[in-house]
Amino acid sequence: MAETSSKDMIRVTYRLEIPAFAGASLEAMAAKIASDQSTGTFTELPGETEAVKARCAARVLSVTPLAEAATPGFPRPEDPEGTRYLRGDAVIGFPLDAVGTDIAALMTITVGGVYSARGLSGVRVMDFDLPAAWSCHPGPQFGIDGSRRIMNVPEGPMIASIIKPALGLTPQETATVVGQLCEAGVDFIKDDEKLMSPSYSPLAERVAAIMPVIDAHAQRTGKRVLYAFGISSADPDVMMRNHDIVRAAGGQGAVININSVGYGGMSFLRKRSELCLHAHRNGWDILTRHPALGMEFRAYQKIWRLLGVDQFQVNGIAAKYWEPDDSFVRSFGDCLTPVFSDADRALPVVCSGQWGGQATETYRRTGGRLDLMYLGGGGIHGHPMGASAGVTAIRQAWEAAAAGVDLSDHARNHPELAASLAKFGR
Amino acid sequence: MAETSSKDMIRVTYRLEIPAFAGASLEAMAAKIASDQSTGTFTELPGETEAVKARCAARVLSVTPLAEAATPGFPRPEDPEGTRYLRGDAVIGFPLDAVGTDIAALMTITVGGVYSARGLSGVRVMDFDLPAAWSCHPGPQFGIDGSRRIMNVPEGPMIASIIKPALGLTPQETATVVGQLCEAGVDFIKDDEKLMSPSYSPLAERVAAIMPVIDAHAQRTGKRVLYAFGISSADPDVMMRNHDIVRAAGGQGAVININSVGYGGMSFLRKRSELCLHAHRNGWDILTRHPALGMEFRAYQKIWRLLGVDQFQVNGIAAKYWEPDDSFVRSFGDCLTPVFSDADRALPVVCSGQWGGQATETYRRTGGRLDLMYLGGGGIHGHPMGASAGVTAIRQAWEAAAAGVDLSDHARNHPELAASLAKFGR
Repeated sequence: MAETSSKDMIRVTYRLEIPAFAGASLEAMAAKIASDQSTGTFTELPGETEAVKARCAARVLSVTPLAEAATPGFPRPEDPEGTRYLRGDAVIGFPLDAVGTDIAALMTITVGGVYSARGLSGVRVMDFDLPAAWSCHPGPQFGIDGSRRIMNVPEGPMIASIIKPALGLTPQETATVVGQLCEAGVDFIKDDEKLMSPSYSPLAERVAAIMPVIDAHAQRTGKRVLYAFGISSADPDVMMRNHDIVRAAGGQGAVININSVGYGGMSFLRKRSELCLHAHRNGWDILTRHPALGMEFRAYQKIWRLLGVDQFQVNGIAAKYWEPDDSFVRSFGDCLTPVFSDADRALPVVCSGQWGGQATETYRRTGGRLDLMYLGGGGIHGHPMGASAGVTAIRQAWEAAAAGVDLSDHARNHPELAASLAKFGR
Repeated sequence: MAETSSKDMIRVTYRLEIPAFAGASLEAMAAKIASDQSTGTFTELPGETEAVKARCAARVLSVTPLAEAATPGFPRPEDPEGTRYLRGDAVIGFPLDAVGTDIAALMTITVGGVYSARGLSGVRVMDFDLPAAWSCHPGPQFGIDGSRRIMNVPEGPMIASIIKPALGLTPQETATVVGQLCEAGVDFIKDDEKLMSPSYSPLAERVAAIMPVIDAHAQRTGKRVLYAFGISSADPDVMMRNHDIVRAAGGQGAVININSVGYGGMSFLRKRSELCLHAHRNGWDILTRHPALGMEFRAYQKIWRLLGVDQFQVNGIAAKYWEPDDSFVRSFGDCLTPVFSDADRALPVVCSGQWGGQATETYRRTGGRLDLMYLGGGGIHGHPMGASAGVTAIRQAWEAAAAGVDLSDHARNHPELAASLAKFGR
């Protein structure tokens, strides 16, 4: 069907849904989308020659039907009671010549316009299949190997924590918590994603308070904890100044609220960054929480990895948010699947309500992989024997998981894990 | 209720929806969101003192119940058949000290995290009420008055068109269409939003082909048509280079795919831009198309206007996309409502399937306002008497609308309008 060879084609998979009226056809809807996203308008035009169409026409490559739905993705009160909805996955090929390699072009041509098509009762972008020309994007600067190198954790999960309370602490109060977490033995500490540079904790003052604690701990113990500061700003110039403040103080990491800075912010930062970039995807939920609408994480994370995300928060088993475990498991695997090469994989950061008790299931369901960061907040700060025991309990839980030992068995001679199980278990 | 005065408070209105189980309470859900977005975690923490909470605690200011829904926003197959869903508008106040004036902080704290809350069956951000400190943002550089000045249209609607076919033309072919549209008498021409810098029409070559046509027309007729070039790139450095190419050739306008460049891209551009920025919001639909989810245009457009959008595409009556007319009418009004002052209003661009026939209803339903751009694509290019007649027909339709004359009456002695009515009417 395709006249353009696959190396010159961007393939996008859409989950489409339309009312199953007489004559309704997913193939026709896919063809309409392909046409709308290339040359279409609502009336015939003199200049729309075959030569013009050939230059940039998108083509439907396949349509795979799925089970019908009884309720539409977008509400359609106008449909007769009992209307069914046809569902299917359509793959549309866009010529590379028509899109190029700019992420803004990709998003506008293959995503933005599709969401507006009339007649759809649901639409979800499932995946981007990008040709080799797209490897021009920088990708992660550190990724998994670089993250391990910075933290000096050659193998096994990297154990991380977050400052709690999330907001409201002064820089000095924060530094005190940092000292406690360093003592507790974590590999990584981060600002809450909601903390950037508020008046009660301006970034420069926070960096000035925290970095000496990190340095002193490194001096004393040889262990340099990686701290990720919240440097996000919607203004790339401000974000770069924030980056420079962290770097000048010897800092090595940053938390980036990727949706809140946008592709432009991330692209600008990555080209100039010397920091390991830990992505928080807040805002993503609205794109993905309705399964018939929006975008699958698989598609979403590819773009952000090409832009330079090193570490990607993906929630975890029994997270405190809405996300089901299955979705987390898929996301974890997505981060570890190369787009073009192993170097563009992002370190999956397992987080949200994690205290170690989920280690076994995480390990089992993600294919027995230990290339991850495991981030405990309340599970460390709220451990009944203190934060140090909270970290120890998490390490014990991962030892047990990797060794295939039952957690409660392992807890018999590991009192920290036993205390976690008693407090946070079931 | 608020201890912080309103000038130090960011108020965000959310449309919340939750299953109406026994004991369910919208007030409790709003309180949970306010807590989660300030200091909350899943367990009690030693450091979470009252002093900490006071610094940054968000507060529920009001909850206004709405009619219950019979179906949830996010599908909930787990709910018993017949479950009803409580709906209401909650206003939450966030202390300015905790958020600051950065758009990334606003989006992460008041929007991003809220979308992830467990237990919601629907959530839609309805509006941001921003304190005076937020007037620090640049806002539109040209806005309505500047757009009129550039196009030399002191009053009445600005008549615009778009290159058709949207994609696939070479720069020279495009320049030919530009010449035709200039002759036809438009005030404004734009690249299709999907056209940025593909290999068959690189921006620099397109600018080099088009600007001499614009210049020659201005020389000959005294009328300088404003051309908006597609300069979007996810890389702000590239977007600025594109901007400079346009500016160096004497160009004055640009089409920006705002969601595809992100806040960072827009912020970076606006600080350096000398071009009038025409916003295309592709991608927005997925945020707003499900009425129980996402974000209302009212909230969305405020942020983009603060970032510097001069002209905002808002569809129109009987658009070819999914958007209902009521939504367009609200959007039109939103663009013309000051955030802080008249200067921050954006010119509403009425578009999509427009050919003049919708002028009367547009005029009537938007409150009899003529501060708008009216953009015809197929309605101009596809006019049976040619593009010039298409533009004339649109001007005739707006004359009739503003004078309160019935279109078909007006068409009796206006053959161009009559031809449009015959071809495009019902």
